[in-house]
Amino acid sequence: MAARRRSEAVLVYRYADGSFSRRPDEVIVEEPLAIQLDGRLVATTMRTPGHDFELAVGYCHTEGLLAGAAVTGCRYCGDGPIAAAVGGPRASRAADTDFNVVTVETGGRAPQPRARLTPTTSACGVCGSASLSELTDRLAPLPGASLPDPTLLARVADSVRGQQELFARTGAVHAAAAFDAQGGVDVVREDIGRHNAVDKVVGHLLLARRMPAHGLGLFVSSRASFEMVQKAWAGGFGVLAAVSAPSALAVATARAANMVLVGFVSDDRLVVYSPERPER
Amino acid sequence: MAARRRSEAVLVYRYADGSFSRRPDEVIVEEPLAIQLDGRLVATTMRTPGHDFELAVGYCHTEGLLAGAAVTGCRYCGDGPIAAAVGGPRASRAADTDFNVVTVETGGRAPQPRARLTPTTSACGVCGSASLSELTDRLAPLPGASLPDPTLLARVADSVRGQQELFARTGAVHAAAAFDAQGGVDVVREDIGRHNAVDKVVGHLLLARRMPAHGLGLFVSSRASFEMVQKAWAGGFGVLAAVSAPSALAVATARAANMVLVGFVSDDRLVVYSPERPER
Repeated sequence: MAARRRSEAVLVYRYADGSFSRRPDEVIVEEPLAIQLDGRLVATTMRTPGHDFELAVGYCHTEGLLAGAAVTGCRYCGDGPIAAAVGGPRASRAADTDFNVVTVETGGRAPQPRARLTPTTSACGVCGSASLSELTDRLAPLPGASLPDPTLLARVADSVRGQQELFARTGAVHAAAAFDAQGGVDVVREDIGRHNAVDKVVGHLLLARRMPAHGLGLFVSSRASFEMVQKAWAGGFGVLAAVSAPSALAVATARAANMVLVGFVSDDRLVVYSPERPER
Repeated sequence: MAARRRSEAVLVYRYADGSFSRRPDEVIVEEPLAIQLDGRLVATTMRTPGHDFELAVGYCHTEGLLAGAAVTGCRYCGDGPIAAAVGGPRASRAADTDFNVVTVETGGRAPQPRARLTPTTSACGVCGSASLSELTDRLAPLPGASLPDPTLLARVADSVRGQQELFARTGAVHAAAAFDAQGGVDVVREDIGRHNAVDKVVGHLLLARRMPAHGLGLFVSSRASFEMVQKAWAGGFGVLAAVSAPSALAVATARAANMVLVGFVSDDRLVVYSPERPER
């Protein structure tokens, strides 16, 4: 298949220095992706096209839908009622719509997902579980990681910034990245939804048989809400480093998970929220 | 009832100027809110407590669940299976949990919502509708508004910034605000979820019998994704002004809605994305 466009040009009026001018502007593409697990719809998320298999697999993993089952296949699935439901009754089944449905296969080894009649969206972290406690209860505490050196985290932030190609073009996407103990940045993914960016990184590592990611840290260009900590925990990351602030529930969850949670990462400062007394 | 805490203090390690220090930090509270419509669960969203009735009513309105039915009441509802489901089987039914369930009443005049077994989250804009096209199909185009003067929008941005009390304390919340044709800022709401902030503003106006908001603009401190435009459209706002970038789908939706969509609002510049040829 041809690569999907991830940004597109629109004609806009730009106001600057007291006057308007007409000019082309680059905006990020946002399209629904319906995710099926063994043929059953589990979520519809608004996402930026690209790395769709990683997103679908990562979502199923971080939401606990795989429950340890191995992924045996992943494919686009343009036919059938799901494609029609996403595009609407008047949508033609053209190439673009065909690539808005991904099926993750486990040969039926994943537990039967609950019926899902309603779509979820780009930042829909806990969709797919019947309750918050269900999410927390299924994850064992992490083995524990040391607090990375602040200068290493600053280098990671700098390296990720340099690889945020879509952000540079559109200013409208979040990034997530996996990094190692030496500060090497392993994989960077961008998406209009910050949860999707994390799911793409997790999906990438899972498809590469590198899950759980105990030796790696997860870097996010956004805030660290509860769901971001949950997804990092499900991925087995010992460290979550965010450019912005965490929530109180995120802090409590990271402490329960035995995860290092760092916020406000910048060149010369950061804040350590978890654990309460970090090893250094 | 006592006012719920919206931020709380945690002890953190702060790194700055090459050294660590232990100090208290203020983090935003993030808690689930289960929203019921006439006794049936329609959504669970991660939100910052405060203005919960506005959030619940606004959500039901912007998601099209009211379908024109008047809201006859709104109450906290701490007993019963919903409270238990949110807090988990081991949760006590203490005061805090009691205030995490809100019931919006229409006396059965709203259409019966579909069964919802799964929670949604803070930024969960299109949760609650069976498809994206369903959302778009239910809304008539707006009457049309003129492009506000850029200096007026800069004043609005400035005024909202001055009222972002929780952001100043925690750095982790988005704001939404309604503003009038003279640049007066009417109501400002903050929430960890940007969609929630919009729903709170819409709910406020609806409970004050000021919907649809055709004479008002909606200002958001975030990006303008598809769901933000949808919510603004459902609220009847003629103008949506965002501090950051829109998505391609947001631009297309605003143009279809006959809505003025402005991005990157700052002191001396902005970008007009919709309509294609604005009246000025």
